[in-house]
Amino acid sequence: MKNTSPKIVIVGAGFGGIELAKALRNRPVEVLLVDRNNYHNFQPLMYQVATGGLEPGSIAYPIRRIFRSHKNVNCRMAEVLGVEVQGNFLKTSIGDIPYDYLVIATGSQNNFFNFEPIKDQLLTLKSIPDALNLRSYLFQNLEKALADRQGESLEEIINVAIVGGGPAGLELAGALSEMKKYVLPKDFPELDLSKMNINLYEAAPKLLSAMSGEASAKSLQYLQEMGVNVFLNAKVSQYDGRCVQLADGTSFLTDTLIWTAGVKGSPIPGLPPDALIGGGRIAVDGFNRILGVPNCFAIGDVAAHVSDENPKGLPMLAPVAQQQGRHLAKNLMCLTAQRPLVPFVFKNKGVMATIGRKRAVVDLPRLKFQGSFAWLVWMFVHIFSLVGFRNKLMAFIDWFTNYFSYDRPLGLIIRPYRRSGEKSKEGPWTK
Amino acid sequence: MKNTSPKIVIVGAGFGGIELAKALRNRPVEVLLVDRNNYHNFQPLMYQVATGGLEPGSIAYPIRRIFRSHKNVNCRMAEVLGVEVQGNFLKTSIGDIPYDYLVIATGSQNNFFNFEPIKDQLLTLKSIPDALNLRSYLFQNLEKALADRQGESLEEIINVAIVGGGPAGLELAGALSEMKKYVLPKDFPELDLSKMNINLYEAAPKLLSAMSGEASAKSLQYLQEMGVNVFLNAKVSQYDGRCVQLADGTSFLTDTLIWTAGVKGSPIPGLPPDALIGGGRIAVDGFNRILGVPNCFAIGDVAAHVSDENPKGLPMLAPVAQQQGRHLAKNLMCLTAQRPLVPFVFKNKGVMATIGRKRAVVDLPRLKFQGSFAWLVWMFVHIFSLVGFRNKLMAFIDWFTNYFSYDRPLGLIIRPYRRSGEKSKEGPWTK
Repeated sequence: MKNTSPKIVIVGAGFGGIELAKALRNRPVEVLLVDRNNYHNFQPLMYQVATGGLEPGSIAYPIRRIFRSHKNVNCRMAEVLGVEVQGNFLKTSIGDIPYDYLVIATGSQNNFFNFEPIKDQLLTLKSIPDALNLRSYLFQNLEKALADRQGESLEEIINVAIVGGGPAGLELAGALSEMKKYVLPKDFPELDLSKMNINLYEAAPKLLSAMSGEASAKSLQYLQEMGVNVFLNAKVSQYDGRCVQLADGTSFLTDTLIWTAGVKGSPIPGLPPDALIGGGRIAVDGFNRILGVPNCFAIGDVAAHVSDENPKGLPMLAPVAQQQGRHLAKNLMCLTAQRPLVPFVFKNKGVMATIGRKRAVVDLPRLKFQGSFAWLVWMFVHIFSLVGFRNKLMAFIDWFTNYFSYDRPLGLIIRPYRRSGEKSKEGPWTK
Repeated sequence: MKNTSPKIVIVGAGFGGIELAKALRNRPVEVLLVDRNNYHNFQPLMYQVATGGLEPGSIAYPIRRIFRSHKNVNCRMAEVLGVEVQGNFLKTSIGDIPYDYLVIATGSQNNFFNFEPIKDQLLTLKSIPDALNLRSYLFQNLEKALADRQGESLEEIINVAIVGGGPAGLELAGALSEMKKYVLPKDFPELDLSKMNINLYEAAPKLLSAMSGEASAKSLQYLQEMGVNVFLNAKVSQYDGRCVQLADGTSFLTDTLIWTAGVKGSPIPGLPPDALIGGGRIAVDGFNRILGVPNCFAIGDVAAHVSDENPKGLPMLAPVAQQQGRHLAKNLMCLTAQRPLVPFVFKNKGVMATIGRKRAVVDLPRLKFQGSFAWLVWMFVHIFSLVGFRNKLMAFIDWFTNYFSYDRPLGLIIRPYRRSGEKSKEGPWTK
C-alpha cells in the first residue's frame, strides 16, 4: 500500500515537522521525515542545558521514538544538500530522495549580521552541541581563573557579555546571575566573584521587543535587581576575542561573548530565486505553498507569508510552526482528495519569558502578568511541552530540587571547548 | 593556618583519590586534589552510558561539589606532566605545584597490547567521552544501515565484536543484546535485525577469570541464553577496521570492535625507574609508599604491592583503591604526628557483575549466588555507590522505568563520532 500512496517528504524534525508528521498518522500517505540529527530538541530550554540546569537528554527526544506507532511515517538521518523542484527529488548525503509533496520545515539559524566573519569567536545557543560547548566553556574559564591566567586579568576570564535582548538572551543572563549568586560561591570559594560582570547588550531601546511594554519594563527591572548590567540602545561594533567594542566608544573585557542577537531562516538550495525573501525565509502563500512550486510547502521559522497584516510574515516562534504543521496536514489531505485548500490563520495563545526564580513575564492575548505566578505558569507550560514522560519527570525533578537547594546539578566539562583563535591559550581545558 | 600545615597533593579524583581527600577533611593538612577532568566518574557504569541506559550526568559528579564543605581541600583541573621527586613538585599544564607529600592515584588506562598501533580503530569504554562516542557510533551505524551502505554489507555495519571477557565486556554484551531484542525492533522496524551478531571474544578458557568458577559458568550460560556468541580461547589477531581476524583462522565482519581486553596503570613521568614495574604499575611497600621515594605514595589501580601472597599486587578494583585511600589518610596522620605507619590490609567484600535483567553473578567471601537476587543486589549496590542524591535518584528512575518498559531512554547522537581511518565513508554521521 505504501508504494501507491502519495509520498510526503518533510525536511526538519523541529516543532513544525514533528506536528505535521504526527497529524499524518494513519492517513493514506507515505511520510518520510528527514533531519540531520536523530533527535528533536526543545529549543526554548537550550539555555538551561548551557547553564547546567538540565541534561541534554531532558530536552531532546529521539525522533524514531516519537513515531514508533506511526506505521506510515519513516525517518532518515541525513544532511539535505538541495532540492530539484523540476525532478521532484531532494539531494541528500544519503542519496536522492524523490517526493510527491515536499515540506520544508528547516527552521532558523543564527544571524550574525556584521559579525559573520568572526562568528567562530562567539558562543551560541542554537543547538545542543552549542549549549554543551557553552557549558564547558563557562566552567573551563572558572577553572582557568583559579589556575593559570597566562597574563589575562581575572575580569576578562570570568566576565560574560550577552548580545541580544530577546527571550534567549534574558533567560541566559538571568540563569548566569543566579549561578553567580548561589552556585559559584560554593564551588569556587577561592575566586573573587565580585569581579564577574554579566553585561547584556540590546541594540533596540527596549528588551523583549516582540512582547508588551509591561513585559519589557518588568524584565528590565528583574535583570537589574539580579545584578545584570543591561545596556539598551547598545550596538556592539567589534570583538577581537578579548574585548567587546560598543558603537558609543565604550568597551568591555571578556573572553565570553554569547550571541543571541538574531536568527534567519535556513532555506535549502534549489528553490526558485523568487521564492527567497529577506532574512533567509521562503515566501509562501496563505496555504504555506512555496511561491511558484505548487507541490512544495514551507512551515515554521523558514516560511513567511507576507501580507498587509504581517508585512514581515508571522513571528518565528514554536506555536506558529506547530499550528502550521497541524494545519498543513489537513490541507495535504484536501489536496490528495482534490478538495479546496483552507488558508492558515494563526491563533496567538500568548508569549512568555522567564528571567529567574519567581521572575517571569507572560503576555496572553487578553491578559498580561509578571512575577511568581507568571514563573509558575512558565515552568508548567515548559515541562508539559517536553516530549515524553521521562523528560518531563527529569526536568521536574531538576527544577524542583533547584527551587529548594538554589543549586544547579550539572557542571561537568565532558568535552572541553576551545573557541577558534584561542589556540595560544593552552591548558587542560583545550585538550 | 593553611600555609603552615603539610601540603598533600593528590593526583587523580577516582575512587582512591576521592576517598583519601574525604578522609583528610578537617585534618591539620592542606590538601590539593588535581585531576584532568572537573568530575569524578563511576567507571563500573560506563557501559550503561554507552548503551543509552543512563545519562553521563548520572554517573559523574563535579569534584568541587564533593568537597564544598571540606575547607582544607582545594581542587585544580590540570594535566599532570611529571614529577620532580628531588625538588618535591609536580609539573602540570597550569604550572608547578609543590608538595610535602604526593599521592599518585591516577588509576589505569586501556591496554591495547599488540593492537596499540591501530587503537584509533577500536572503540573503548574507559571515559565518559569514550562511552558517548560509542553510543553515537552504535546509533549512527543503525541509521547508516537503513540509509546508504555505500557497498558495505548490512552485517558489517550492524555486527558488534567485543574483545575481553571481564565484567565490562560481559555487561556491554548483555546490554547490547537486550537493546537488540527489546529496543531496536521498535525504533528500526525496517531493519532485519536477525543479521546483527554480537560476538564476545575471550583469550582465556573462561569468562570473568577473576571470579569463581560458578560465576564464570553462569555468566557464559546467561550470555548464550541472551543470544550473544561467546568465543573462549579466542585470540584476536588482526583488525583492519572492517574484519576481525582470529588466531584460529576464522574471521568476523564488523565496523564495530569494542576493546575491553585489558588495562594498565597510568604512572606519571619522573619516578625512579626501579619504582616502575610491569603493567604500568608503581611498586609500593605495605604502606603504599613508592619504593625509593619516601614522601610519595601510590594507591589504587596504578599501585602494586608485590608480595608472596599477591605476586601481581592486588586486583585493579574500586574497593581496593577506596580502602587504600581511607587507610592512607590515617597513615599520613601518623606521619605528621611521627607515629609508626600501619600496613594496609585489603578486606575483600565481594565482587559482582551483571549480564542482563535478572541475570547477575555475585561472589561474596563466603557465599556465591547468581540470578534475580544477585541482579537486585547488584542494582542496589551500584545505585547506592553513585555520588550524590540526584545521581542515585536519576539512575533509579531510569532503571525502574527500563524494568517495566524493557526500553532504554537515551539514543541521541549528540556528537557524531568517526573512527580514524573511516574518512572514506562520509555521511551525516561524520559531520
